[in-house]
Amino acid sequence: MTSSNLSQRVIEGDARAVARAISLIEDDTPSGAELIRRIFPSTGRAYLVGITGPPGSGKSTLVDRLTAEIRKTAKTVGVVAVDPTSPFSGGALLGDRVRMQAHAGDAGVFIRSMATRGNLGGLARATSDVALVLDAAGKDVVLIETVGVGQDEIDIVRTADVSIVTVVPGSGDEVQALKAGIMEIADIFVVNKADREGADRTVASIDANLSLQTFAPGEWRPPILKTEATTGRGVAELLATIERFRAHTAGSQGSRRRARAEFRVRELLAQRFVQHVEERVLGADELAGILDRIAARELDPYAAVDEIVRRTVKGASAS
Amino acid sequence: MTSSNLSQRVIEGDARAVARAISLIEDDTPSGAELIRRIFPSTGRAYLVGITGPPGSGKSTLVDRLTAEIRKTAKTVGVVAVDPTSPFSGGALLGDRVRMQAHAGDAGVFIRSMATRGNLGGLARATSDVALVLDAAGKDVVLIETVGVGQDEIDIVRTADVSIVTVVPGSGDEVQALKAGIMEIADIFVVNKADREGADRTVASIDANLSLQTFAPGEWRPPILKTEATTGRGVAELLATIERFRAHTAGSQGSRRRARAEFRVRELLAQRFVQHVEERVLGADELAGILDRIAARELDPYAAVDEIVRRTVKGASAS
Repeated sequence: MTSSNLSQRVIEGDARAVARAISLIEDDTPSGAELIRRIFPSTGRAYLVGITGPPGSGKSTLVDRLTAEIRKTAKTVGVVAVDPTSPFSGGALLGDRVRMQAHAGDAGVFIRSMATRGNLGGLARATSDVALVLDAAGKDVVLIETVGVGQDEIDIVRTADVSIVTVVPGSGDEVQALKAGIMEIADIFVVNKADREGADRTVASIDANLSLQTFAPGEWRPPILKTEATTGRGVAELLATIERFRAHTAGSQGSRRRARAEFRVRELLAQRFVQHVEERVLGADELAGILDRIAARELDPYAAVDEIVRRTVKGASAS
Repeated sequence: MTSSNLSQRVIEGDARAVARAISLIEDDTPSGAELIRRIFPSTGRAYLVGITGPPGSGKSTLVDRLTAEIRKTAKTVGVVAVDPTSPFSGGALLGDRVRMQAHAGDAGVFIRSMATRGNLGGLARATSDVALVLDAAGKDVVLIETVGVGQDEIDIVRTADVSIVTVVPGSGDEVQALKAGIMEIADIFVVNKADREGADRTVASIDANLSLQTFAPGEWRPPILKTEATTGRGVAELLATIERFRAHTAGSQGSRRRARAEFRVRELLAQRFVQHVEERVLGADELAGILDRIAARELDPYAAVDEIVRRTVKGASAS
């Protein structure tokens, strides 16, 4: 299939073309980049919902339930689950199979898990690109679920149209989870597994944290919802809250999209430059030699990098 | 204090100079980079211990106990805790105060928490640099503790001399935590809070996962330890296991250091290039204009980045 055919079929919503396109992106091929360029003008219609939280907070089940709830409104749903599963356990693929069963035969749902990537920033970029594919394919809502509280994961969720942070009640641990840098990115908090002991205490502790912030009149104060993803309790209210947030921010959606563009441009710039240096500037043995000298403390990394940058960019004096 | 004086005092192990040096690094100042260049030849003596695991697995308490255990052997200890705490809660600073109390008045211990950073990859680089400062200051062992399972955090821990993954027993959640891409980086597994129900089941589940891997004769198979950080139980055994790993890998430590050098060079290359583009290639309004056009779907990010790279690197034709 040519790149032009593939992008056309993605835009027509062909599920097999979408799957093929995602594989190209995951493999970090030039055709993946070319595909994104072709579909990009057809993106920007989907509403991006980012969901994050610590492992074990029941995000996958919550996303499944939320998908089902959105489907009741006849909107179509794409799901990108960033699951940094060990390659040797084959978990991402297995995860997809388990996930798909709940929505088997529903052409209005497309689910894909992303495994971890070796490259610097590779996972975040790939996730954004997969979200673009689902957007171009006509999915009305794209749910992006990330495990963990890493910086990349936070950036992915932070630049979605709405950011949901899930927490689970526990014996004091929830406070540590809250500490993990995700407090300030939440538009909506979800205390999942709310049937567990301590759910109200967790709600109170988030609320106490929010009280430290000042909200201007009319400014959105992140609501704290309780859900039980296994039974579906609270999921309808979550969707209603997402819709409420969407209406509240309808006038300011542009700033999120701009932040998303900036995050993407910085990531791509970094990746393209390192690639350029490795392919065009340094010989394979040369990089290895530099690394050996750094490891042996004969050269410091800042001096090494300054020298490489000097050799690579225009207008710098060669040394 | 001049940069030269500061680096000299860091190398002499002056605690106030170390604190000042770390602040320079955290603020991402040119003096921070200059300092690293100066102290770099004096680094490479410390043994780097990376500790990661999901939030709430009791890493901080474990690190405190391990610090005390190492101090019994008269070795000095530096601790870098990557704590992506919300800036508004002031948690990192508070955390340091709480942590320091246990080792107050012990000049052989230096503890520093790092808060989250806005920059791409900034936290990982800053963490490595702080570890270098503690190394140069003569700390025998540097413990690097990261919260979360993000890609940056994994890279930090993966490139330490030994990588420890902590897990906590729980109602089925521990399996999800294990899925989180940290399984294959562990040299040593620690099931902390081992007095909790399900600890043995967690050990068995890790062991079952390890059984899927093939270990060559003489190859290190990651041991699974049980600890109770609150009482200190199992911590002496953990230190003994670290020493055993150190002896086992004494001949191959170079490859870890080379991986560390590579990770650092890639990170720095990316950061320096983006900085160069923003300061020297694009005008402030120009970047804003590009982002607006991407957000409005008039320009795709790949085309925008290709054009910026073309304008910046040598030997590329301007378009």
